[in-house]
Amino acid sequence: MTPPSQVLLDEIREQPSAWRRLADGDAPIAELAAVLADQAPPLVRLAAHGTSDHAAAYATYALRLLCGWTAVRDSMSVALYYGAAAARPGELAIGLSQSGQTPDVVAWLRAARAAGATAVAVTNVEDSALGDAADHVLSIGAGDERSIAATKTYTCMLAALALLGAHVAGRGAAMVRALRATADAAEALLPELEAAVVPVAAACEDAQRMYVIARGIEVATAAEIALKLTEIAYVGARALTATSMAHGPVAALDPTFPVWAVASDDATRPAVAEAVARARAAGAPVVATGPAAATLVGAAFRLRTPAAPEPLLSPLLSVLPGQLFARELAVAKGLDPGAPRHLRKVTSAA
Amino acid sequence: MTPPSQVLLDEIREQPSAWRRLADGDAPIAELAAVLADQAPPLVRLAAHGTSDHAAAYATYALRLLCGWTAVRDSMSVALYYGAAAARPGELAIGLSQSGQTPDVVAWLRAARAAGATAVAVTNVEDSALGDAADHVLSIGAGDERSIAATKTYTCMLAALALLGAHVAGRGAAMVRALRATADAAEALLPELEAAVVPVAAACEDAQRMYVIARGIEVATAAEIALKLTEIAYVGARALTATSMAHGPVAALDPTFPVWAVASDDATRPAVAEAVARARAAGAPVVATGPAAATLVGAAFRLRTPAAPEPLLSPLLSVLPGQLFARELAVAKGLDPGAPRHLRKVTSAA
Repeated sequence: MTPPSQVLLDEIREQPSAWRRLADGDAPIAELAAVLADQAPPLVRLAAHGTSDHAAAYATYALRLLCGWTAVRDSMSVALYYGAAAARPGELAIGLSQSGQTPDVVAWLRAARAAGATAVAVTNVEDSALGDAADHVLSIGAGDERSIAATKTYTCMLAALALLGAHVAGRGAAMVRALRATADAAEALLPELEAAVVPVAAACEDAQRMYVIARGIEVATAAEIALKLTEIAYVGARALTATSMAHGPVAALDPTFPVWAVASDDATRPAVAEAVARARAAGAPVVATGPAAATLVGAAFRLRTPAAPEPLLSPLLSVLPGQLFARELAVAKGLDPGAPRHLRKVTSAA
Repeated sequence: MTPPSQVLLDEIREQPSAWRRLADGDAPIAELAAVLADQAPPLVRLAAHGTSDHAAAYATYALRLLCGWTAVRDSMSVALYYGAAAARPGELAIGLSQSGQTPDVVAWLRAARAAGATAVAVTNVEDSALGDAADHVLSIGAGDERSIAATKTYTCMLAALALLGAHVAGRGAAMVRALRATADAAEALLPELEAAVVPVAAACEDAQRMYVIARGIEVATAAEIALKLTEIAYVGARALTATSMAHGPVAALDPTFPVWAVASDDATRPAVAEAVARARAAGAPVVATGPAAATLVGAAFRLRTPAAPEPLLSPLLSVLPGQLFARELAVAKGLDPGAPRHLRKVTSAA
């Protein structure tokens, strides 16, 4: 039997081919985009938990910047626990769950649809409770994910949402090409990243606390890496926007408290650079990643990932070093990164 | 000179009288509510950092449940870094900053107003850049806050937002009465809480990681307590919805990793109870707080706070044990809770 830590590594490595499958089979996404573009929703509400919620955070950027739609992560609780309307007629409601089984996401999507919204399920399992609750399914086609920690389902959600937004905007063909090129870039990058994270993990082995910071479209990446560090390597990891780190959390930093920074080569770079400078002033070791990693002064380690040919696809690449680092850190600590304690694959909490 | 740790304690203790001042002087809030109610905004966008962002999270519940408005925390980055419209004509944009100086909140509110939204500043400093950028100012009247860690400005923002929502809904007088009663409850509660947090802090002195969990209207409380623990006591603290804790983060729990749970006596209680059961199964010590603290099975400590006469005011009480605990934990660790390292009062990061 393949050991769980190898299953996780295999699934990380499978990502480029999973993205390519989405690029090659994007006709259903184009059809869905045509339907939704006609509806021109005044508001897009997204709801999810965990990794899928980070994909929702990505969608708030991708759908806004590609289609001009106001897309927001909405509270499920107001509808499920306090009786507020989940949505209004004409709006678009998107529930995200890799398994399609998360109970409150299913209940929320059903409530939004009943309230008159068009309901879309973003899932890896089309034939699921979430799929049944929806008007339309955006299938992410990641294939069976055996590790408890999500990796390929996360990046496939991002890719599917980027394709959807691009098709709505009439830029589908260009996004398909860019996604293929991004897959090529990831395949070239992964072997070097797998080696590069080993010394970083060795240096961080005793760290119990970490921040993962970013700004703009990479905020979802920071949230996802912090979750991987927590669930796989048991680190008290907290994702923060670079600007929010200065609102209090910077106080906790010291030489035992590393900061993982994701820097984009765009207008957000100065905010990340300033946060890194403050982390360095506090004595925190900094791991610089992302397309602008080379520009961050004073980093102890650099794990540069190239910019994708379409900037909105860069988060598919920026998350890779974090996935590999979390796994490597777990291995370095003698943990089993493929089968974290206390976890089931589908969350059934109320 | 008063030592900083005493200044922080004084400001925590001042909260009930600050809420009473708001209740006694709510005429300007009622006037603002009348103007906004006439406009009936189709969407309310909120933007802030740090503690003020937690008040924004509270507002997404308070304004939705009191006025039926769809209120969401919006991305500032899409407008400030990527050129998207910050808002649409007729919408309501609310920027929150206790100092009124946070640069990107000011820039975002200005952009939202230029795009045709009605711009409201929620601030403790009416005569500030944020106040200048707004059509209307919702002044929280907390008085001078000398500690770097925000306490009274946080709960005064909550109180001011609850009063605003209630006045919009034509329930202002009832909310004023409820706020006065909540202040009375807090005054009775604080001395016993100050004593009760001492053994909890002693038990958690070595903890480097903590989760703070809640669901529904107390999610803002969890975020604010996690931030206090991080900025004052340097704990790697992470706020999670009770349901999200089961999506991965539960794996990291062990007997050295405490969970602080805020339980409401409403429909969200089963979700928090289930998360606590999972934390207990993982061996994590649990600190049970909130109105339903007594119902959480297996808690190592209980710091019950009463339900407020109006449920939406309960978060003003639920945050108090967390503020006091963070301060006490810092004192137990030999830190100075009134003057955290590396921090300025106004965040000037880009």
